[in-house]
Amino acid sequence: MSSDVHEAISAVNRRFTDAYAQGDAAGIAAFYTDDGQLLPTNSDIIRGHEAIAGFWQFVMGLGIKTVALASSELDILGETAVEVGQYTLGGADGATIDRGKYLVVWKNDGGSWKLHRDTWNTSMPA
Amino acid sequence: MSSDVHEAISAVNRRFTDAYAQGDAAGIAAFYTDDGQLLPTNSDIIRGHEAIAGFWQFVMGLGIKTVALASSELDILGETAVEVGQYTLGGADGATIDRGKYLVVWKNDGGSWKLHRDTWNTSMPA
Repeated sequence: MSSDVHEAISAVNRRFTDAYAQGDAAGIAAFYTDDGQLLPTNSDIIRGHEAIAGFWQFVMGLGIKTVALASSELDILGETAVEVGQYTLGGADGATIDRGKYLVVWKNDGGSWKLHRDTWNTSMPA
Repeated sequence: MSSDVHEAISAVNRRFTDAYAQGDAAGIAAFYTDDGQLLPTNSDIIRGHEAIAGFWQFVMGLGIKTVALASSELDILGETAVEVGQYTLGGADGATIDRGKYLVVWKNDGGSWKLHRDTWNTSMPA
């Protein structure tokens, strides 16, 4: 059911942003498939749970306190879904540190929707 | 057939890089679906053929003379395919100006595979 997939993926996005706000990098990594990949700016591709947790821990160390996600498109293709949305990164004082867009390829991994490919970049001027 | 899809998408990538080298921004834009989107760094989402041609024209004006694409993954999902690969941008003297990774969502548009969502970011240090 398309609306079920929307709801399941929204729920993971909420859990992702909650885990981020709590500084739980390992919790975030668990939302990715076992062969999940991050494609961040200024980095080669980051592969697997341990490296993904390390990346998010590093981002938390930069003073980015919150990640907000606003989904704008979800293309459901059976056990895969492609999401496009907007992210906003917030600092300790609530100020916006960065805003941009993301593209996530999701996989239904034994009943749980998980992030499989996750890439994003800033929309702010250079 | 999976190998046919691989071949068809490889062929579009070759035509894309050829069109780029020839400075044919409108030709590049025609490789995108009618509702195609670019998600470039330092930019909001760019939508539709005219704006996509304008973006590639702008990039050509920056002195980037060549785009090389090396596909590393193609996940075929019926009439959609998700590609991950590495790009290299070259200058007039053949020097590498930038290298990074890309993620493209392809759609089979009436028999022609076209870029539907196209995003990338640099892998070089900040």
